Amino acid sequence: MTSPAPHFDDAFRGTLEQLLVWRRDVRHFRTDSVPAALIDRLLDLAQLSPSVGNSQPWRWIDVRSNEARSAVRESFLRCNAEALAMQPADRRGLYARLKLAGLEAAPRQFAVCCETETGQGHGLGRRTMPEMLEYSAVSSIFTFWLAARSVGLGVGWVSILDRAEVEAALHLPTTYRLVAYLCVGWPQEDHADPELERLGWQERTSAGRQILLR
Amino acid sequence: MTSPAPHFDDAFRGTLEQLLVWRRDVRHFRTDSVPAALIDRLLDLAQLSPSVGNSQPWRWIDVRSNEARSAVRESFLRCNAEALAMQPADRRGLYARLKLAGLEAAPRQFAVCCETETGQGHGLGRRTMPEMLEYSAVSSIFTFWLAARSVGLGVGWVSILDRAEVEAALHLPTTYRLVAYLCVGWPQEDHADPELERLGWQERTSAGRQILLR
Repeated sequence: MTSPAPHFDDAFRGTLEQLLVWRRDVRHFRTDSVPAALIDRLLDLAQLSPSVGNSQPWRWIDVRSNEARSAVRESFLRCNAEALAMQPADRRGLYARLKLAGLEAAPRQFAVCCETETGQGHGLGRRTMPEMLEYSAVSSIFTFWLAARSVGLGVGWVSILDRAEVEAALHLPTTYRLVAYLCVGWPQEDHADPELERLGWQERTSAGRQILLR
Repeated sequence: MTSPAPHFDDAFRGTLEQLLVWRRDVRHFRTDSVPAALIDRLLDLAQLSPSVGNSQPWRWIDVRSNEARSAVRESFLRCNAEALAMQPADRRGLYARLKLAGLEAAPRQFAVCCETETGQGHGLGRRTMPEMLEYSAVSSIFTFWLAARSVGLGVGWVSILDRAEVEAALHLPTTYRLVAYLCVGWPQEDHADPELERLGWQERTSAGRQILLR
């Protein structure tokens, strides 16, 4: 427990930056399978994520059955059709051409949930900001995502879903709240820029880089 | 744009795991200052975080003034006193001995917010799950956190705060929602295990590692 902290050098930091640069939201997957041991390894690493009060509230659901996957896909298709219909006329064509999920091809799919009633952590740090539990689940997703990219795997986060519908379709415990639905597999291509930028939907800006002083 | 994707090797992955292991929530900071260029670098890296629809909704507030810091500290002290009073009798003494924030010493402090009304991203991916904007802000925090650890800096996430109170004290735009208040500085000590585990509040468990199959 008292081993000295590792030293992280410039070479590591440079490669870490490359990992951040090349981490992408992937929607184009090859269908070949992913070794189960590799996924297990990524899930182990996700356990190292920060969580409020050490509550570790993330719950990963391994969605395998055709029935469950079909239900998720149907929810996506309906929600996406609704979103398309609500686009302003001048963006509707562009929206229609976007590929917003890899649900039909991704060999591994996970519903990542938050256990909203966990006793772990004894409530510490989440009385005034109960969202902290969900934020903790997000941190486990981000750890998984980076670790996946470090072995060449792609992750796509699908949020065009009816939360309650997916929770019901997956027969989740009532205390589980869906935070993300992830597609995981080998990407067809690697990119350093977001697909939404390449396709002209939304470029990156400096809006978030303007630090307000208080 | 079409440069080949980098190859991440075993050595990098091993060091990345060490980074995840030694990333901690820090509450004990040295008071010596942090070079501004170093913080700038971390904020640049945070811009590489994933965001729904490429909305980049994170907004970082650099909290410098004594007035603003005092207001945050007062909110913490009151919320923490309330939390202490609500502890069951058998845990109250333990709770009282925990140090749950480094607000009095951390040389740099940031309120990380979500711009809830951003037009960036044109609403994509957040119609049915509006929380995606906050989740995106969380991803920027986690990127910053890992990058900070890679240069030896500690980050502590304070959530024992009254959100509305802090938002008012910092005179935030009404569309900003507080996601996290971060203390940043050089840690007094490095640890591979969480302080809440060392002090007997909550050990890590395998609850989140039990993958449900669907």
